[in-house]
Amino acid sequence: MNVTIDCLQYCNWSSSIFDQMAKGQLDAVHVTICYHEDFRETVENMSQWHRLFEAYPERIVHGRTSADVILAQQSQRTAVFFGFQNCSPIESDIGLVEVCHQLGARFMQLSYNNQSLLASGCYEEVDSGITRMGKQVIAEMNRVGLVVDMSHSGERSTLEAIAASARPIAITHANPASWHGALRNKSDAVLKALAESGGMVGFSLYPHHLRDGSECSLQSFCRMVADTADIIGIDHIGIGSDLCQDQPDSVVTWMRNGRWTRQTDFGEGSAAAPGFPAQPPWFQDNRDFPNIRLGLEEVGLDQDAVAAVMGGNWLAFFEKSFGPG
Amino acid sequence: MNVTIDCLQYCNWSSSIFDQMAKGQLDAVHVTICYHEDFRETVENMSQWHRLFEAYPERIVHGRTSADVILAQQSQRTAVFFGFQNCSPIESDIGLVEVCHQLGARFMQLSYNNQSLLASGCYEEVDSGITRMGKQVIAEMNRVGLVVDMSHSGERSTLEAIAASARPIAITHANPASWHGALRNKSDAVLKALAESGGMVGFSLYPHHLRDGSECSLQSFCRMVADTADIIGIDHIGIGSDLCQDQPDSVVTWMRNGRWTRQTDFGEGSAAAPGFPAQPPWFQDNRDFPNIRLGLEEVGLDQDAVAAVMGGNWLAFFEKSFGPG
Repeated sequence: MNVTIDCLQYCNWSSSIFDQMAKGQLDAVHVTICYHEDFRETVENMSQWHRLFEAYPERIVHGRTSADVILAQQSQRTAVFFGFQNCSPIESDIGLVEVCHQLGARFMQLSYNNQSLLASGCYEEVDSGITRMGKQVIAEMNRVGLVVDMSHSGERSTLEAIAASARPIAITHANPASWHGALRNKSDAVLKALAESGGMVGFSLYPHHLRDGSECSLQSFCRMVADTADIIGIDHIGIGSDLCQDQPDSVVTWMRNGRWTRQTDFGEGSAAAPGFPAQPPWFQDNRDFPNIRLGLEEVGLDQDAVAAVMGGNWLAFFEKSFGPG
Repeated sequence: MNVTIDCLQYCNWSSSIFDQMAKGQLDAVHVTICYHEDFRETVENMSQWHRLFEAYPERIVHGRTSADVILAQQSQRTAVFFGFQNCSPIESDIGLVEVCHQLGARFMQLSYNNQSLLASGCYEEVDSGITRMGKQVIAEMNRVGLVVDMSHSGERSTLEAIAASARPIAITHANPASWHGALRNKSDAVLKALAESGGMVGFSLYPHHLRDGSECSLQSFCRMVADTADIIGIDHIGIGSDLCQDQPDSVVTWMRNGRWTRQTDFGEGSAAAPGFPAQPPWFQDNRDFPNIRLGLEEVGLDQDAVAAVMGGNWLAFFEKSFGPG
């Protein structure tokens, strides 16, 4: 079965974007529900999704299990899976892990760019690994079927999370640092440990994570995918585009600054270029998944390999990850 | 002027305890408002104090400035200063620092026993020091006059907080590790750096922090005070008894476990002795401050030194710390 799954987007959702998803034949998407929001604010964001599901029943459906991806495909819709880019929704309460899972959360990053109660972020000077609470929360996430996501965490925290988690974890959106040395990209050591434990990495199309940024060629991206498959195996890779379509620049300022500083943090940007970067021409929006499919074929991946990368691997991961442990 | 100040208590407040404060001639006390509570829960705890101020106007008054200590003494009452043993009340919002100061908070620990968003706790295996948010929050605390308290933080975090803070900080309740090697007690390196920067340490009478625990003698405690004065100077030491009078053992379970674990953490206790330890006979409650005063005289401190330790130093620290920076 051929499915297309994007394991990370944070668009400014609209009728137009949902139409583009249909045109790109996207069967499932993992959407970010929060960056810094607390529990109550996260629930509000979920509630806004409930209104979208109600308004666009021909286009989108709330995804909770891998079976929902198939159902969505059969009805030519996109299954929308909820995830958190931070552990802020569980505040300091481990009991909220199960509550959030019941509300549909399927991925939770243990930290965003900064230190959290659970793990260090990749922007901290020192990464002290998984905290006391972090160990407890990983066990609880394993129990209920909430996937540990270390996309924005530091190296040590990520390696310790892979080791501490009884179930495979994910890096939903990042690329190999050996291809492009961004702070957010991952070392080969991390990618190998991730794959050896049965985990998944989703390749990012966010320009700050791409070699040559917005000028990155489709061929360069697809060669990186093929090279990574050679290193960690074809079964552990997928797409996590990090597409932030139609968002105003105030949103990237919120992502970077939340409410933790009174100064301005520019993250992967700079004072001279504080906003969202331009997408590469071959991946502007959800209609462009066929471009990637073609690009992967052109760098030599066979039909099965392309199908695995474009969604088959994420589907298998969803199947083993979202139920009780 | 002779004042008696205890810079940390968390009693199960009652008419009886307020009467004992009057008998012990306690002019000011820094009371703990929260251990793990979020902002809203902390406000609720403050609101309960408002009811106590209303019910016992002859005994207690809300303290906000050093002048309130003098006013309390003149009216034979005790000024009650609010403090947090964790940064949980500011959640992930630096704006709540000023809000909490306006509500009367005068001390805030950057972490309790675990890693926080700001600093590591003394029970974490790895102490990564002050975080990115921690540096921002220290600057904001300096600006508004909320004192950084590192009583439960790790060694590296404490040294970095002393260095990062533009104003002197406090360790409101701990003892030298060289006297009793508890995880919560402080190294000479920390105590010296604290004093050199104009900070204060309050000596704890909580049995887990005492040599010989509940059997600690008054003489041993007072010799430790005198010895510490020799090392870091008489101007930087005071009392922070950590008195937790009349609390049920469920309270110490809350302190240790909050909502961060589904297992049971025994902290300084053990499965065999999970509850509050018994106070030494010479410091049972607030009537016993004269015992300490006498004990300090008996180990050779002169009148001025005794007055400084019993409250004069804390009064001077309050005077320079609670206003805008």
